[in-house]
Amino acid sequence: MTAADALFDHFGRIAAVSNAIGILQWDSDAMMPEGAAATRAESMAALSVIRHDLLTDPRLAEWLSAAQTAPAAGLWEQANLREIARILAVETAVPADLVAASSRAVSACEMQWRTARAAADFAMLRPALEEVLRLQREIGAAKGARLGVCPYDALLNDYEPGARSQRIDALFDDLGAFLPGFMDEVAVVQARRPQEAALSGPFATATQCSLGLEIMTAMGFDFSRGRLDISAHPFCGGADNDVRITTRYDENDFLGALLGIVHETGHALYEQGRPQRWIHQPVGQARGMSVHESQSLLMEMQVFRSRAGTAFLAPKLRAAFGRTGGGWSADALWRRFTRVQPGFIRIEADEVTYPAHIILRYRLEKALIGGDLSLADLPGAWNEGMRELLGIVPPDDRFGCLQDIHWPSGGWGYFPTYTLGAMTAAQMFDAACRAEPEILPGVAKGDFAPLTGWLHTHVHSLGSLYETDMLLTRATGRPLDAVVYKAHLRRRYIEEAV
Amino acid sequence: MTAADALFDHFGRIAAVSNAIGILQWDSDAMMPEGAAATRAESMAALSVIRHDLLTDPRLAEWLSAAQTAPAAGLWEQANLREIARILAVETAVPADLVAASSRAVSACEMQWRTARAAADFAMLRPALEEVLRLQREIGAAKGARLGVCPYDALLNDYEPGARSQRIDALFDDLGAFLPGFMDEVAVVQARRPQEAALSGPFATATQCSLGLEIMTAMGFDFSRGRLDISAHPFCGGADNDVRITTRYDENDFLGALLGIVHETGHALYEQGRPQRWIHQPVGQARGMSVHESQSLLMEMQVFRSRAGTAFLAPKLRAAFGRTGGGWSADALWRRFTRVQPGFIRIEADEVTYPAHIILRYRLEKALIGGDLSLADLPGAWNEGMRELLGIVPPDDRFGCLQDIHWPSGGWGYFPTYTLGAMTAAQMFDAACRAEPEILPGVAKGDFAPLTGWLHTHVHSLGSLYETDMLLTRATGRPLDAVVYKAHLRRRYIEEAV
Repeated sequence: MTAADALFDHFGRIAAVSNAIGILQWDSDAMMPEGAAATRAESMAALSVIRHDLLTDPRLAEWLSAAQTAPAAGLWEQANLREIARILAVETAVPADLVAASSRAVSACEMQWRTARAAADFAMLRPALEEVLRLQREIGAAKGARLGVCPYDALLNDYEPGARSQRIDALFDDLGAFLPGFMDEVAVVQARRPQEAALSGPFATATQCSLGLEIMTAMGFDFSRGRLDISAHPFCGGADNDVRITTRYDENDFLGALLGIVHETGHALYEQGRPQRWIHQPVGQARGMSVHESQSLLMEMQVFRSRAGTAFLAPKLRAAFGRTGGGWSADALWRRFTRVQPGFIRIEADEVTYPAHIILRYRLEKALIGGDLSLADLPGAWNEGMRELLGIVPPDDRFGCLQDIHWPSGGWGYFPTYTLGAMTAAQMFDAACRAEPEILPGVAKGDFAPLTGWLHTHVHSLGSLYETDMLLTRATGRPLDAVVYKAHLRRRYIEEAV
Repeated sequence: MTAADALFDHFGRIAAVSNAIGILQWDSDAMMPEGAAATRAESMAALSVIRHDLLTDPRLAEWLSAAQTAPAAGLWEQANLREIARILAVETAVPADLVAASSRAVSACEMQWRTARAAADFAMLRPALEEVLRLQREIGAAKGARLGVCPYDALLNDYEPGARSQRIDALFDDLGAFLPGFMDEVAVVQARRPQEAALSGPFATATQCSLGLEIMTAMGFDFSRGRLDISAHPFCGGADNDVRITTRYDENDFLGALLGIVHETGHALYEQGRPQRWIHQPVGQARGMSVHESQSLLMEMQVFRSRAGTAFLAPKLRAAFGRTGGGWSADALWRRFTRVQPGFIRIEADEVTYPAHIILRYRLEKALIGGDLSLADLPGAWNEGMRELLGIVPPDDRFGCLQDIHWPSGGWGYFPTYTLGAMTAAQMFDAACRAEPEILPGVAKGDFAPLTGWLHTHVHSLGSLYETDMLLTRATGRPLDAVVYKAHLRRRYIEEAV
């Protein structure tokens, strides 16, 4: 057995444990009775320790070093060694007591966040969040020393391998300069267009679920290797070849559940399309959170909110719910899907205003990690940023800097991947439609094969073979910029709007 | 930290892994898409190896020895040390290569069994089954040498700790001598009684499920720590404080699913009633398979097929399915529940003929492990046993020695626990009704609290504190014998029959 064989075999065992954790996490969110929480927490903690022990096995460094100096292997083998080296560098960089301290601080802060948010009182959260922030800085410094980057870039790297804040600054400054004026233009256009008639329910959950399954089937979801279930917060999880998405149903409004299903199916097609031969190896994993989010947003934003998407969807909605009338036309649905209205809450934001919420959070978390902003000044900086980017100021911190769980949860460096994903989705969909003229006509008649075929070839089947920049350049002819994304927004919200 | 603390802490980690395995096993049977089977098998194998490694950690023997010689601990601590000693003796007795060889032989034999059973050709199965049998003998010999018992008793011990075949011989000889003549008596009585009117469906699955949930609630199932789902073969599984039972629905016959739910709820009440303080420790586990089966059969056979049980059930059935008429009376339901008809297939057998199937299998597997019977002679011995015990001879091996998966699966020593459980159930229910006169009137009006209160005190809450004999003696005043069981059968099928 060569060193590479031993290494890959070991990572196969790590995947077996990770897949167990993935299914148990899905179960915790979708199936588990509430009285099982304490028992489940012990199982999850035990499996996390086991996985960490496997990842810090001292033989791995020897095997990796021997494999890296062995005669040249194939492209995939080399890329797998590169990904393993990346994982090991980060996994061994942080001392165990720092990991444990951060885990405890996060648990305490998440609890405190629930109380503070309900009370709309950031001061209640601040001591616990100071501790989380302090430990995130330490973790970022430890990982950054290993990777040769600043602490914030080291945290980014956990979600988007290889990402650099200098590059994101440029992209987000470009977009941040564009958005406020663009929102004003959109407001003028939308003030002139007709209001959509209300869709009045109730819409039976069983009907919504059948409709969701039908849309998933049309999109190419493989039910022999996945499921759709219900959870409080929709997600795509599970395990290799066992992709489990969730949504939640509201009998007064079916669009939330439906677009949730479309979004998660975008993630799921990526997961189901990963290369079978490498599916349990690091190189067989999805490329990173930006590319992952690009796959969900490509479906939700680029495809389903297009004219072709609403042409496909509107007759299915009328048939499923047995309705007719003005509110149920493709045109009315399209107007509903493209309504723009600045608001305080990120998760309720539309396609145009969402990036502004993200740019705000990115700038603030980078300044907090870098020491350029103190938590005492966060509420003020938040409100100032909202005024600048969205033109509105939250009435209290519940509608402001207390709304998201990411920072209390220790998810620093995650926020930018949402908007990087949206920009990537626009650039990919533009390239796909140029390469395959049948994509949009196909969507309009429910044939997603031209689209999913392109995505499979240029994204899904490649796993982590290429770095993100290379993946996008090979797929679209250039690295990420804001040009296509801005053009997409202008076309949809100005030129196509009626 | 004392040696006992270290030991109990380690077994807490083993429970955390076992609980993960329990949920993944439930998921495999109730939720998993078929295309995930290979990935799941790798996760299950990895977790089994991890659990085995934890159970054979060399520090355990030292800790156990130190804990056993420490100043006297409490009753529960002592019993936990006794159970840990029992587990370690067996876990370390079998060499790893023998475990692996047996696992491979079982996998091959199970596949061959499906083919051979479909072809009704025992000769096709024999070579693979010879290998399983040979390895079971070796495993039995290895464990037996450690425990100081014969190989068959060592296999028995895996399912029913401390059981001895000499004792079971006496119980089963008693019952085996009683059954054939008794069946003849029952046949005479049943020939005189009216035939039950047919219950014609369809019975909607959703209605059957609601009814099942209603019955489970009445029986005291705690839905904050458990679930009901669907699987091909009903079972009770899951994890500590997360008890998951399953059934399967047939729209033409609701009684199978309903009695399946009642049976599994009997198991589940035991699992949910185990002592919280020790729930992750060996002493907090259920006592053994006989006692476990006694809890399911007590509900299914002693309670729900009694006059009180059908008085409770019949109006619920009429209400659920909106039916009336002769076939839906409590009396007709009772006659349906107590119909006796010798047949070839164990899992279709009624309460009276079921033990005959078990006695046959027990005698044959004991002779096969002991070397007193060869597999070449198994079909003949099977058919001869059927003639002696049930008065019928199977037309081919599919209806004979090929019907069960237990032997191909390596489950030797499991069969007797079914009938030991039935006898234990009769003896316990008899004692409970004498101690709590409100039990039967309670059942008739849907109040299960007097019954479940008695079971909780005398069985569930005790976990593995006492050995099986002591548990039963404390609960019923004597060790297991066939007297109460035979009296129960005579009363139900002769005296109460009309």
